[in-house]
Amino acid sequence: MPGELALIARIRAAAAGRHRHLRLGICDDCAILAPPPGHELLVTTDFSLEGHHFRRNWHPARSVGHRALTRGLSDIASMGGTPLAAFLSLALPRSVNPIWINDFLDGLLTLASASKTPLAGGDTSESPSDNILADIVLLGSAPAGKALRRSTARSGDRLYVTGSLGGAATELAALARSPRRYRNANPTDDHPHLYPQPRLAVGQTLLRRRLATACIDLSDGLSTDLAHLCTESNVAADVQAAALPLHPLTDSLSAEQALHNALHGGEDYELLFTARPGTRIPRSIAGVPITPIGVLRNARKSAPQVTLVKASGDRTPLAPQGWQHLL
Amino acid sequence: MPGELALIARIRAAAAGRHRHLRLGICDDCAILAPPPGHELLVTTDFSLEGHHFRRNWHPARSVGHRALTRGLSDIASMGGTPLAAFLSLALPRSVNPIWINDFLDGLLTLASASKTPLAGGDTSESPSDNILADIVLLGSAPAGKALRRSTARSGDRLYVTGSLGGAATELAALARSPRRYRNANPTDDHPHLYPQPRLAVGQTLLRRRLATACIDLSDGLSTDLAHLCTESNVAADVQAAALPLHPLTDSLSAEQALHNALHGGEDYELLFTARPGTRIPRSIAGVPITPIGVLRNARKSAPQVTLVKASGDRTPLAPQGWQHLL
Repeated sequence: MPGELALIARIRAAAAGRHRHLRLGICDDCAILAPPPGHELLVTTDFSLEGHHFRRNWHPARSVGHRALTRGLSDIASMGGTPLAAFLSLALPRSVNPIWINDFLDGLLTLASASKTPLAGGDTSESPSDNILADIVLLGSAPAGKALRRSTARSGDRLYVTGSLGGAATELAALARSPRRYRNANPTDDHPHLYPQPRLAVGQTLLRRRLATACIDLSDGLSTDLAHLCTESNVAADVQAAALPLHPLTDSLSAEQALHNALHGGEDYELLFTARPGTRIPRSIAGVPITPIGVLRNARKSAPQVTLVKASGDRTPLAPQGWQHLL
Repeated sequence: MPGELALIARIRAAAAGRHRHLRLGICDDCAILAPPPGHELLVTTDFSLEGHHFRRNWHPARSVGHRALTRGLSDIASMGGTPLAAFLSLALPRSVNPIWINDFLDGLLTLASASKTPLAGGDTSESPSDNILADIVLLGSAPAGKALRRSTARSGDRLYVTGSLGGAATELAALARSPRRYRNANPTDDHPHLYPQPRLAVGQTLLRRRLATACIDLSDGLSTDLAHLCTESNVAADVQAAALPLHPLTDSLSAEQALHNALHGGEDYELLFTARPGTRIPRSIAGVPITPIGVLRNARKSAPQVTLVKASGDRTPLAPQGWQHLL
């Protein structure tokens, strides 16, 4: 594997920094963490597999690293948690270009640094195929008993979403058409597919100020993730189509396609949360716009779980059509 | 992916059991754990990739599941820790037989149950190639500041090993010659390669009774893992060849081959630990034999890090020749 020693050196160096809750990084059989007293631990793991979650001929390596970490950070954000540490398992084919590895780590470590998440360990291996395989583990913490969940929404709660929707799917379609245009995309520009921003500060504020009754991140698409929230909370939902905050990238699409991307596109990594009707929800939290998009109702076997309400008042059942994951 | 729903159902069911430190299993963006107060958290991740760590035409599925979990449990054991929870990331090719998945989970969950380790979550995906890909995350706990490390051995310390050595490499060679013989190997019989036993109780006893100054597990082979311990502790070591506890399976080999398997074979998942010369180390701990095999010396640039001492008194440098991992 080319660049193997450089890879270890970089990961070790990245993991060697001092971090408040990290007692021991990469140099032993396990990393040792000391979670803050009175807090519970949040744990999430997410694959990023070439050919399934990304393509080397579409995605810049920097974006692959950024997105791999985003998947985990967004799960921590949706629980209102604070990241404690990340662990990277990375299997590389012999043929991989050392520059690719370097850029991948750059993308991952830049976001890790921005989100104060030490890379505390992991595993490396030769890939048994031509595919690059990554698995990211994120550990976070939240005050005991206070983590935001999917299962605690109630009928009557209002439904809110952070940021805007449909941008990731729209950019992905453009990327598939002309990958070259995105080869040097600037990570600090707004690239909703290549460089999504996990909403950690929003989640933490929702938890600290007790604003939300439930929360989930939009990784699989609004239609799928809202269905998860409804199932776990045993409620139904009405979503106002006209209220959905569409990402500016969708302006170039037909109204129908823009709505489709916002509802089913997935990977926007925004937060979907619920609040009691009386709760005053700010228009923006930590600089991120917050938009009311609907309301929860009692679940009924005879009625659809999620209903899309058009501006005309027309009601249509909204089936989950986003990405289907198993867990 | 065949058996997909059955897979989810089984993993969910396995993760739904009540466990003291598991607040929330598979049903939200993150699992929630409450580590015991006054304890630090141990974290380790290990790939099990088909074609690299196992072969479907050699290893029974049950063994693949058992071995995947063993890799993580053995890391927890080497720190003297107690397992808190396991997380499984599993990517399956479309072609995989549902029976394979079922047996894999059986192997993993049987060991999880025996070691009181709840399966608390993970990720699943379609594999982008024909290879089955697994990544196991193990979380454990140890009293704050007390976890056994590799880096705390001192010159003069005595060197000990649990159980016996060379069995895994010897069985692997036999497996490669006639995989059919092992298709129905009984997990409760002694199969050092197919069903290794992580030494959790030994590690915990070493920690609780403060017997060890340092510890590492033998995953890569004695020559490689002892070199790790020496490097991290900045010491050198003399190993008495005649003292090495050879696994009975090596009886069929030449003396030279038996010694080679014991020194470099890897995957025995025994513990290698050090103790001050005055410490009384029992001949067995938790039913596992403990054997003194050498002594630590001051590291010197002009002298080899590890020296093998034959019964004749001949001294030969012992270079690391086991499996090389990156992290």
